[in-house]
Amino acid sequence: MPLGSDHVSHRRPYPQQLRPVTIERGWSKHAEGSVLISFGDTKVFCTASVTEGVPRWRKGSGEGWVTGEYSMLPRATNTRGDRESVRGKIGGRTHEISRLIGRSLRAVIDYKALGENTIVLDCDVLQADGGTRTAAITGAYVALADAITWAQSKKLVKAGRKPLTGTVSAVSVGIVDGTPLLDLCYEEDVRAETDMNVVCTGDGRFVEVQGTAEAEPFDRDELNKLLDLASGGCAELADLQRKALEGTL
Amino acid sequence: MPLGSDHVSHRRPYPQQLRPVTIERGWSKHAEGSVLISFGDTKVFCTASVTEGVPRWRKGSGEGWVTGEYSMLPRATNTRGDRESVRGKIGGRTHEISRLIGRSLRAVIDYKALGENTIVLDCDVLQADGGTRTAAITGAYVALADAITWAQSKKLVKAGRKPLTGTVSAVSVGIVDGTPLLDLCYEEDVRAETDMNVVCTGDGRFVEVQGTAEAEPFDRDELNKLLDLASGGCAELADLQRKALEGTL
Amino acid sequence: MPLGSDHVSHRRPYPQQLRPVTIERGWSKHAEGSVLISFGDTKVFCTASVTEGVPRWRKGSGEGWVTGEYSMLPRATNTRGDRESVRGKIGGRTHEISRLIGRSLRAVIDYKALGENTIVLDCDVLQADGGTRTAAITGAYVALADAITWAQSKKLVKAGRKPLTGTVSAVSVGIVDGTPLLDLCYEEDVRAETDMNVVCTGDGRFVEVQGTAEAEPFDRDELNKLLDLASGGCAELADLQRKALEGTL
Amino acid sequence: MPLGSDHVSHRRPYPQQLRPVTIERGWSKHAEGSVLISFGDTKVFCTASVTEGVPRWRKGSGEGWVTGEYSMLPRATNTRGDRESVRGKIGGRTHEISRLIGRSLRAVIDYKALGENTIVLDCDVLQADGGTRTAAITGAYVALADAITWAQSKKLVKAGRKPLTGTVSAVSVGIVDGTPLLDLCYEEDVRAETDMNVVCTGDGRFVEVQGTAEAEPFDRDELNKLLDLASGGCAELADLQRKALEGTL
Amino acid sequence: MPLGSDHVSHRRPYPQQLRPVTIERGWSKHAEGSVLISFGDTKVFCTASVTEGVPRWRKGSGEGWVTGEYSMLPRATNTRGDRESVRGKIGGRTHEISRLIGRSLRAVIDYKALGENTIVLDCDVLQADGGTRTAAITGAYVALADAITWAQSKKLVKAGRKPLTGTVSAVSVGIVDGTPLLDLCYEEDVRAETDMNVVCTGDGRFVEVQGTAEAEPFDRDELNKLLDLASGGCAELADLQRKALEGTL
Amino acid sequence: MPLGSDHVSHRRPYPQQLRPVTIERGWSKHAEGSVLISFGDTKVFCTASVTEGVPRWRKGSGEGWVTGEYSMLPRATNTRGDRESVRGKIGGRTHEISRLIGRSLRAVIDYKALGENTIVLDCDVLQADGGTRTAAITGAYVALADAITWAQSKKLVKAGRKPLTGTVSAVSVGIVDGTPLLDLCYEEDVRAETDMNVVCTGDGRFVEVQGTAEAEPFDRDELNKLLDLASGGCAELADLQRKALEGTL
Repeated sequence: MPLGSDHVSHRRPYPQQLRPVTIERGWSKHAEGSVLISFGDTKVFCTASVTEGVPRWRKGSGEGWVTGEYSMLPRATNTRGDRESVRGKIGGRTHEISRLIGRSLRAVIDYKALGENTIVLDCDVLQADGGTRTAAITGAYVALADAITWAQSKKLVKAGRKPLTGTVSAVSVGIVDGTPLLDLCYEEDVRAETDMNVVCTGDGRFVEVQGTAEAEPFDRDELNKLLDLASGGCAELADLQRKALEGTL
Repeated sequence: MPLGSDHVSHRRPYPQQLRPVTIERGWSKHAEGSVLISFGDTKVFCTASVTEGVPRWRKGSGEGWVTGEYSMLPRATNTRGDRESVRGKIGGRTHEISRLIGRSLRAVIDYKALGENTIVLDCDVLQADGGTRTAAITGAYVALADAITWAQSKKLVKAGRKPLTGTVSAVSVGIVDGTPLLDLCYEEDVRAETDMNVVCTGDGRFVEVQGTAEAEPFDRDELNKLLDLASGGCAELADLQRKALEGTL
Repeated sequence: MPLGSDHVSHRRPYPQQLRPVTIERGWSKHAEGSVLISFGDTKVFCTASVTEGVPRWRKGSGEGWVTGEYSMLPRATNTRGDRESVRGKIGGRTHEISRLIGRSLRAVIDYKALGENTIVLDCDVLQADGGTRTAAITGAYVALADAITWAQSKKLVKAGRKPLTGTVSAVSVGIVDGTPLLDLCYEEDVRAETDMNVVCTGDGRFVEVQGTAEAEPFDRDELNKLLDLASGGCAELADLQRKALEGTL
Repeated sequence: MPLGSDHVSHRRPYPQQLRPVTIERGWSKHAEGSVLISFGDTKVFCTASVTEGVPRWRKGSGEGWVTGEYSMLPRATNTRGDRESVRGKIGGRTHEISRLIGRSLRAVIDYKALGENTIVLDCDVLQADGGTRTAAITGAYVALADAITWAQSKKLVKAGRKPLTGTVSAVSVGIVDGTPLLDLCYEEDVRAETDMNVVCTGDGRFVEVQGTAEAEPFDRDELNKLLDLASGGCAELADLQRKALEGTL
Repeated sequence: MPLGSDHVSHRRPYPQQLRPVTIERGWSKHAEGSVLISFGDTKVFCTASVTEGVPRWRKGSGEGWVTGEYSMLPRATNTRGDRESVRGKIGGRTHEISRLIGRSLRAVIDYKALGENTIVLDCDVLQADGGTRTAAITGAYVALADAITWAQSKKLVKAGRKPLTGTVSAVSVGIVDGTPLLDLCYEEDVRAETDMNVVCTGDGRFVEVQGTAEAEPFDRDELNKLLDLASGGCAELADLQRKALEGTL
Repeated sequence: MPLGSDHVSHRRPYPQQLRPVTIERGWSKHAEGSVLISFGDTKVFCTASVTEGVPRWRKGSGEGWVTGEYSMLPRATNTRGDRESVRGKIGGRTHEISRLIGRSLRAVIDYKALGENTIVLDCDVLQADGGTRTAAITGAYVALADAITWAQSKKLVKAGRKPLTGTVSAVSVGIVDGTPLLDLCYEEDVRAETDMNVVCTGDGRFVEVQGTAEAEPFDRDELNKLLDLASGGCAELADLQRKALEGTL
């Protein structure tokens, strides 16, 4: 039985492939939508919680709201981190990713069709090995789709309204030792000169492009290569999401 | 595919039985010990993190330290709760259970044998249906045992020293409609007149006895019946822990 | 004039006796009920504050609410502790005891008879020498009884309604050097192998039983001896409470 | 037996007199100095805690440090206030008074003579009826004097050194309905047009003068009358402090 | 081009003069009133924000409210200080000054005439060289006057009502090397034996007098000299405020 | 004199131009580098604070550290916002921008050449009208360059070492009503379908590319147009930075 922290990430034979992806729906008996998604050794538990009503600033608008919260369990990483609840404040990285998740999912929501309902997407990282935010977005989409189906079945969403205007998936790309790489694991991410997270809709358009030079600034040519790679990865993930929702994954 | 919050807890045919228990080891590639434990629909993810060194107040003592942290994911329950990290403070219930987990596990630790190492037991509730604290203690023991085996293999613990002096397991008991019940699910817990959490060592002695009158004060006779029931449940759990560690569960 | 921190707790001639207990009512001109209680050198100032109305989640129920808050003055102990207000968060021990006080007093409250009124029991430890939580509960009961009398006189409680269904008192017990001991002072508490706090109603039933193995797990026989001792102590305290309320203490 | 919140402050026959003052020393068995002081119905419990060493920024200077912390028990006032520990932050008024207490006491300290020791003066208001900050300073001085005597007896202060360079007392004054008044109770304070807190040394000089126009700005003549009244009150309090320390109060 | 932290405060030829004062109005395009004020090298940016409505405790009274908030930019001083937002709490000094600003401005407000409107005075110190609180009050008055003119023009204040009952300005005074000094810069403030902040109305009466003995207690004679000096300084500032509001400064 | 909140942003004649940019150096007498930068009506005050030493995790590495902190004054915007220090926590947007500033400036730092020194870039928004984060980065670069010159003159940086490896500037771009626009003001930003912040080095490479679909996902062609526009804007800003540092702006 494999135990402890001596585990090694399995390197992929073809560096421009996605790591193995799994998407398990119905992982919570309480949540209206729930998914355990894995990108390689990264595992994120995504739940979608539907409540009637909207935040105060949106009341009476007839429009719904969708938001995200991201967190890591303290031992999701190789070295245990302090809980943010114990430190009494949320760190900048957590804030940044929570906001990204919310924005990404809202990109495919028709607020009017959703009506005055709120959906919260909680993405808790059980095990981290790079790409936790992109796995979170990709999994949260599936949980969101299930939650909306539930809301329709409960008549919280009016008959004939389609709150989802498309699908959304996300992937990380980076340049490691001069080679563009798709879906970086932690070790690759640490060594990357440039690191980019890309969120796409199912029709291939961009929702978010966040590229960061880690070691060296990048030029337009490198940027283009990364965008090509990310677009392909997102399309592949969109296909897996579709299969998961059809029950054919 | 079962979806959403309409799920119903399965009532047990014999009310004085444990709910089905599962204990899966090695659920994290990073942690030195890790367990996914379930008591019925309650699922708790327990990790044991070993670090060299001890808190400041214990430095130079030659003795180790073991502590626990408990938390619920926001949608572990039927209604989503706010994250304590977002509220900026830890609630009383969380504090109380974290302290209970730490005390319970320390009851079977020989600090001298552990040496100046610290083990943190993180118990995160993925899904709650009553008995989360008792499942947490029971699972944390298994994670702790694996972590100590790891520490011995890494020579963090000196050869021949046995930091574990025994085993520990926990169960809840309560009186519902006048009937003593073992291992209460959420619905039973809500209806219980008296609620008790009992932590026992493998040799049948008590580490913690916490009985609370919810509706009516209880008399000595009722207390005795509950203690009998709990002792039996803890013994059964100790057996399951042993099998899990042997790999025969 | 005795000064400073060289003071020594007076050991009791008979270890299974309560320490000297004093209960002074009317210690605050503002509070609806107030008591300065001492168990030996432990002194706790208990006030009961009555307000019309209940917390939001209880509004419209026709039922009242009772809650407790516990705190230590920074120099209540031998070494000055930081104020929790300065640290910006409440510690786990404080949370745990506040919750215990609230639960214990609610055990003798008929919410319907109380009507939509809230009573907060503030228990502030002026000097600590073991048993602060049990002194707090015992004193808070007396303050609560006076506050209810006040509420009745002000017609906040309807004529003929009796919000108090009984009396409640609490005591600590422990095993020190193999001997069961009643109402432990700080030094005894530190040395105890097992430590138990017991809350009883005036008719001898249990409201809370919290036993903790400090050094060694305890067996059923030891548990029984401690429960016997605690029951006797609580009965004695119930008698003192009655006398204090009659003005004959 | 007087109960509850119907109590009325006793008005003084001569408005330019102090309210009855009591100073009880030795009120804590733990603290190096402790005093229960009352100005009329205002009761403040003052403890002085001595520790070896000084805050980091003062280390190696050979000089000591004295600081103050002020707090109100939640039901010290007519209406219960939330605890600052529960709210998670200290209010502006508390901060302001804590700083005033520290500055006032430091005015009579010779840091060199004190050596690298720290004395914290905790002033906790048990019952408030106006003048809590001035009672706190006046009582804290007595606790401080006792703590320094203790420190000398323990040789924490070198033989022959006198850390106290004088005495300090404080009183409030105000103009109510055009009449200057000494030592205002709460009702008078609320009605005052001008309110002033004055801290004096035993030789009649000023340590702090804090005058605030509540309703109407005040002119130089009114200011002079208030200063005269305050000087007299402080001198009277200095006399009571001296008697308390001699044991002749 | 002068750069960096080697800059020296220019000493004034006549120590009983104000430092050069500048008052620039209209420094913000958003705020209803805004001023950049400088007292020597101290620069404070004051904005007045008007909102309809009042805090909950004042609703329905027909009366308005005015409050102040003070803060220093982290590098306003010679050594960078941590941001209070990063530390998660407001320090005592900030609290104290914010309260002083609010009280000082409220002294010249007729709440009835203001009606149920709230004005918040934000005073942010861009560069500190002593006297930041007195510059803040003096500048905030000008911003407040502009904000009230704006509120009148927008009919938030009823025609014919005059919410301002006078003018208010503030200055610091101190005794340095035995000499009374007006408007102390940082270096003088550090060396002062006594330090006093005085807030006056335009007709020469006092709103606040806050004198603190830094090194030595001060006597009545010294107090009188400081008050004389401060009264003169405040009158001079009142004149500058008037000119600024007339546009003739 | 223009007063109050009725001010209107001046629309630019050519939408693909930068708004008027001003860069004033030496705006603080205390900071080692300081700049008041404006992009149209957006004004940001940037200071660079140099301290010897590095955070604990970097000690002994021989390498320096550069970090950023961003904040808005409460009335920088049209509606007053609560201070984060008063709320007791930093919001997600503030965190996100602070992190972006730090990363952007670190992209042109040679840590080894900087040696074990830390530079903190504080960017406080005095007035906001869109593009506050890009103005902050562009201004912070100039403050950083001045701070490094200062550190070299003080021999904190070793002779011959060049901690700056290039220059960095930033600009926002967006698509408004189908038209790509450079350097958006607040009104344009609110109406933008897509919003992108781009950080470039002086040699035209990218440090950060952050594109967000606000209303509609964007395609590759739109992305390319925005990148072209941003590259031009950053080059123009780099030229202005150079002139400011030469004193020829």
